[in-house]
Amino acid sequence: MADEKLPTRGEDFSEWYNQLVLKAQLADYAPVRGCMIVRPYGWALWENIQQALDRRFKATGHQNVAFPLFIPKSFIEKEKHHVEGFSPELAVVTIGGGQELAEPLIVRPTSETIIGHMWSKWIQSYRDLPVLMNQWNSVVRWELRTKLFLRTLEFYWQEGHTAHATREEAVEETRQMLDVYTDFAVNDAAIPVIPGAKSEAEKFAGADTTYSLEAMMGDCKALQFCTSHFLGQNFAQAFEVRYLDQSGQLQHCWTTSWGLSTRVIGGIIMVHGDDQGLVLPPRLAPTQLVIVPIFKTDEEKATVFKTARALKAQLVKANLRVALDEREGFSPGWKFNDWEMRGVPLRIELGPKDVAKQSAMLARRDRPGKEGKTSASLADLPLTAEKLLAEIQQALFDKALAFRRANTHETSTYDEFKKAVETGFAFAYWCGNDDCEAAIKEETRATMRCIPLDPDAVLGHGHSTGPGICVHCGTPATARAVFARAY
Amino acid sequence: MADEKLPTRGEDFSEWYNQLVLKAQLADYAPVRGCMIVRPYGWALWENIQQALDRRFKATGHQNVAFPLFIPKSFIEKEKHHVEGFSPELAVVTIGGGQELAEPLIVRPTSETIIGHMWSKWIQSYRDLPVLMNQWNSVVRWELRTKLFLRTLEFYWQEGHTAHATREEAVEETRQMLDVYTDFAVNDAAIPVIPGAKSEAEKFAGADTTYSLEAMMGDCKALQFCTSHFLGQNFAQAFEVRYLDQSGQLQHCWTTSWGLSTRVIGGIIMVHGDDQGLVLPPRLAPTQLVIVPIFKTDEEKATVFKTARALKAQLVKANLRVALDEREGFSPGWKFNDWEMRGVPLRIELGPKDVAKQSAMLARRDRPGKEGKTSASLADLPLTAEKLLAEIQQALFDKALAFRRANTHETSTYDEFKKAVETGFAFAYWCGNDDCEAAIKEETRATMRCIPLDPDAVLGHGHSTGPGICVHCGTPATARAVFARAY
Repeated sequence: MADEKLPTRGEDFSEWYNQLVLKAQLADYAPVRGCMIVRPYGWALWENIQQALDRRFKATGHQNVAFPLFIPKSFIEKEKHHVEGFSPELAVVTIGGGQELAEPLIVRPTSETIIGHMWSKWIQSYRDLPVLMNQWNSVVRWELRTKLFLRTLEFYWQEGHTAHATREEAVEETRQMLDVYTDFAVNDAAIPVIPGAKSEAEKFAGADTTYSLEAMMGDCKALQFCTSHFLGQNFAQAFEVRYLDQSGQLQHCWTTSWGLSTRVIGGIIMVHGDDQGLVLPPRLAPTQLVIVPIFKTDEEKATVFKTARALKAQLVKANLRVALDEREGFSPGWKFNDWEMRGVPLRIELGPKDVAKQSAMLARRDRPGKEGKTSASLADLPLTAEKLLAEIQQALFDKALAFRRANTHETSTYDEFKKAVETGFAFAYWCGNDDCEAAIKEETRATMRCIPLDPDAVLGHGHSTGPGICVHCGTPATARAVFARAY
Repeated sequence: MADEKLPTRGEDFSEWYNQLVLKAQLADYAPVRGCMIVRPYGWALWENIQQALDRRFKATGHQNVAFPLFIPKSFIEKEKHHVEGFSPELAVVTIGGGQELAEPLIVRPTSETIIGHMWSKWIQSYRDLPVLMNQWNSVVRWELRTKLFLRTLEFYWQEGHTAHATREEAVEETRQMLDVYTDFAVNDAAIPVIPGAKSEAEKFAGADTTYSLEAMMGDCKALQFCTSHFLGQNFAQAFEVRYLDQSGQLQHCWTTSWGLSTRVIGGIIMVHGDDQGLVLPPRLAPTQLVIVPIFKTDEEKATVFKTARALKAQLVKANLRVALDEREGFSPGWKFNDWEMRGVPLRIELGPKDVAKQSAMLARRDRPGKEGKTSASLADLPLTAEKLLAEIQQALFDKALAFRRANTHETSTYDEFKKAVETGFAFAYWCGNDDCEAAIKEETRATMRCIPLDPDAVLGHGHSTGPGICVHCGTPATARAVFARAY
């Protein structure tokens, strides 16, 4: 596995990504076009992501549920923007149990419609609100150009759905979940993100407002990390989701939805990975530390293995996720490369001399060579490892933030803008007009990623204020926005 | 919710079940025929089941993965018994992205075929074996008669799939997983089960041998709790899953699969439930204890709530799953009934006198009236509660086992047999013949549930040994088997 060399990121970032996903055994191509198989290492990473988010969802009062895979075709047609957006992407079941179905069934692309239908039965009174739900499942969208984790026909995600008595509460929920995602991105995935609002053209089909987190990948392109939608009363009206308020009046609910998918795994690979392979943030890494035993003679092997197994037990007890590489027939050097490729944050090298000194050598994945090496006594090792893992977690975030800021440019002229989006993000005044946005996309392949909620955080310093003019058309600007080529 | 009365189990067991599932808000009917929505209370129960099993799967070396929802139609056709078994039940996607598909896609009814296909790529050498995988997902089988949790078009489950170098190892895995399920059934679900082998007629389509756990429900009918299949080399041959052995010979793998679904929730309802509603085993109950505050005046309310909140915090700290019922406008009596219906194992009643005495009254769900009440000091309450929950867990199991044994009869004559399956399980000698099995089913509506691995455990005492004669046809018996009408 560690034998075939990856292309470097500089040579071919896209091929580096494709080959790394396969080589690290995160995922593989399914026999059905555009579908993927998530292999054990990839799924273990996803389970850690799920736990990190699920804990936050439950702490903010959400409950998990499961709505069915199949949605009657007529449901999709009830909300006019929703049907326009999703119609071209649907997978349709027309045969069940050997019979042609009277009404074809859609394999869910998202669940607003069927949830709206059920809420209209369950929600009667203001006492039933808010309703705060989430589900972990997979959805299907018939994409033409696919790439493992980033865009597949079927993908794994969570979809949160909530219903509220007032507009204010629903807006607050939309923003709260964006904050929850930001907290996860920053503290668990070590990925700096720009929270902001999407344009009319880029928002979710059926939403009043879509917010997203935008992140910069290692090739300076943007990735939409997740989204949170304020749906207004659009779905509540289409599905008659109503409640009796305290004065006995029938009111439509205000609803939200928000989602994060396995594409985040693609983001983690592309933000932190290097030419040696994956670099996983310690808080999400399936294996946080690997112990590689080093020995020549059988006697040395016996001594080293005995200590290594005791050390592993000690680290497991300290709640660290640790592997001991006992594979036969591979040299320590080969193993080092293999675990580096898999992105394990910390390697413990243990040889007979280390055992004699009751110490071990720790090597950080994020700092190659001697600079990343520390010797630690075995007795202190769990504490030393925990400290180093926390340092690595922070270092990955700091590096990614510095990289994003170095490759994001404030642009005043369209020439500057065009140059900026060739190599990174452009931050520019914009008129807010659909046509202008479309022209920019046509001319530069850059899309409006978001209107940042905190413009100062984009570059880490104050930015020009006051009424500017649109970088493209020169008319008065309505906002400052981030533009970039995107996945 | 607690206002409409359930039918009693004696009046109409089936309606008691249907109404209870809706009333306790475990699940609801989806707008698509035969599909269900699992609501928060039901899904929280499923999450506890998932955790209890997932922990055991990982402890026995299995890794979670995700194979796609869609399977090419041609795959299903490669294993001849598999296609015969599943063809009538398939849901078929014929349209994707607005286009008719060249090859229709099957929505997975189970994943042996697509996993076999991928294993043929991943498995090369004996060094790659064993492969031990599991996935949590939903599958679709086009059932005609459906019932919430017990039989739905789409259902949630886990499917384990393993590949081995030898027949012995694969057989051992099949039996090991049956033991894992038994451990879960007995210790977490508090359900006594009969592990055994299925008949040729009842085994999985494509298996050499199917084992199952069979449980007796409150109406004395049988429920297949889960299955574990030894697949021989059937799928390995159909999909060319081969490995080079240590002597350089190409060999077919031996494979297994095993699954447990949300129908187990139906089993928990039907084994433990009573005329007041659900009775959940403490180890799986989403809420293990509920505190119901009792007060008359505002002053009493303030005192009681303050103590109740502190008590809740104390119980949460002890890792107990606790709810405090602060709902306004409902009497304590109404709340008692509501939580009884929801099957919460232990109720804590807290009034002003209790606060004064720094004690509370504990009421067991499984023992109605005074018999199930204990007074406990607040300081000791977490310990008292833990002890009582363990007692309830054991009592539920003991009661279910005694019930099953009381309603299982050894039968020597066909008259005794027919009488036994009218009211419970029959345990009888059987010739092992397909025709005889079919005739019994036709004549009595009872099916061969399993040939118990430990015949002595069925009735809890030694049973007649030696060569008997078939209870139906009188020819020499090959086994003693359990027969019953089943869900």
